[in-house]
Amino acid sequence: MRTGKGLFVSMEGPDSSGKSTQIQLLQHHLKQTGRDAIVAREPGGTAIGERIRAVVLDNAHPEMDPLTEALLYAASRAQMVSQLILPALAAGKTVLCDRFVDSSIAYQGGGRRLGEVVDRINAYAVRDCMPDITFLLKIEPETAERRRSACRNDRIENEGPAYHEAVYEAFLALEKAHPHRIVGIDGTRSMREISAMITARVDALLREKDAAP
Amino acid sequence: MRTGKGLFVSMEGPDSSGKSTQIQLLQHHLKQTGRDAIVAREPGGTAIGERIRAVVLDNAHPEMDPLTEALLYAASRAQMVSQLILPALAAGKTVLCDRFVDSSIAYQGGGRRLGEVVDRINAYAVRDCMPDITFLLKIEPETAERRRSACRNDRIENEGPAYHEAVYEAFLALEKAHPHRIVGIDGTRSMREISAMITARVDALLREKDAAP
Repeated sequence: MRTGKGLFVSMEGPDSSGKSTQIQLLQHHLKQTGRDAIVAREPGGTAIGERIRAVVLDNAHPEMDPLTEALLYAASRAQMVSQLILPALAAGKTVLCDRFVDSSIAYQGGGRRLGEVVDRINAYAVRDCMPDITFLLKIEPETAERRRSACRNDRIENEGPAYHEAVYEAFLALEKAHPHRIVGIDGTRSMREISAMITARVDALLREKDAAP
Repeated sequence: MRTGKGLFVSMEGPDSSGKSTQIQLLQHHLKQTGRDAIVAREPGGTAIGERIRAVVLDNAHPEMDPLTEALLYAASRAQMVSQLILPALAAGKTVLCDRFVDSSIAYQGGGRRLGEVVDRINAYAVRDCMPDITFLLKIEPETAERRRSACRNDRIENEGPAYHEAVYEAFLALEKAHPHRIVGIDGTRSMREISAMITARVDALLREKDAAP
């Protein structure tokens, strides 16, 4: 199991759900309250992970097998866990992850229809290092599609509506399956409202961690 | 399970055991007897696999986690199985693989001491597509070390003697565990002798395949 007092937060949801903005707002809030927070994005987050990201998102590879995709995401994640997340948590830092294992379960398990294989592969990649709390920014696939508008740019985003629908269903199933870890948030609410909800929950968790022996 | 009449041959053993030479000799022999043979190397073998190979063997990444390494090899393998090996076998071609899943079990399972995790990850990557026959070219780690001489060049070959010893032990354990599939060959015998043994076995298997209904 993890050591140290660091808090591990992941942000999940469809593309264009506002994850990155909320990560930035949360990081800013933590900085103002004197907390060290490390931000990591998936895939990527480390030098090795960024090289994997360049392969997995490359539009030049429409021939990529779904299982190859799932294994590449897991490889990037394994590196991020061992090199970045575990040491940061051990040092008492807060870790903010823009996507983590739930995205693989939604995108490769749901979207690519690989199912439970993805859970099992990721159990190796993640070991016991799961987020303390996960915020799921929920926006319907059609809304996400409109927000993405003209700027489609990678191999995953370029998938069709049925794919994004399956991804979203998988996210909702995860929310139901892990009610203690995953906090679903209506992603159509204002940026400020969402940010206020997130910071309140994170501040409460940090107080708990601080109070723990 | 696999369809088609193609024969799937893998060549395994430590670096400098003569695998690539034997693959070439076997391919030449098959060509002379009018057989189509496809040669693939691991990691790599496909455009995606070659990009993964560039990451996994890069000396610039000493920080690579053993699990990341195992997942990257598995990702490359999954792509090769789906894109190259299965279609070739279905078309009745012979597939010659310079390393396959046994190398992961030996190098990551044995050398990196990840153990059975590697078997399980690769079971997903390989599905049911296992070689009909595997030739294991056996040379002692010290002999391999001498043969490698001055031209060490990648992240795996640059590991120390204890690592290569563990890899070799794992290869020997695989030979013992899969006596019907894995044919151990004394890699210190002459190139011609080894080639004659391999071609005799492969020719016999091809005759069997041809005779099957």
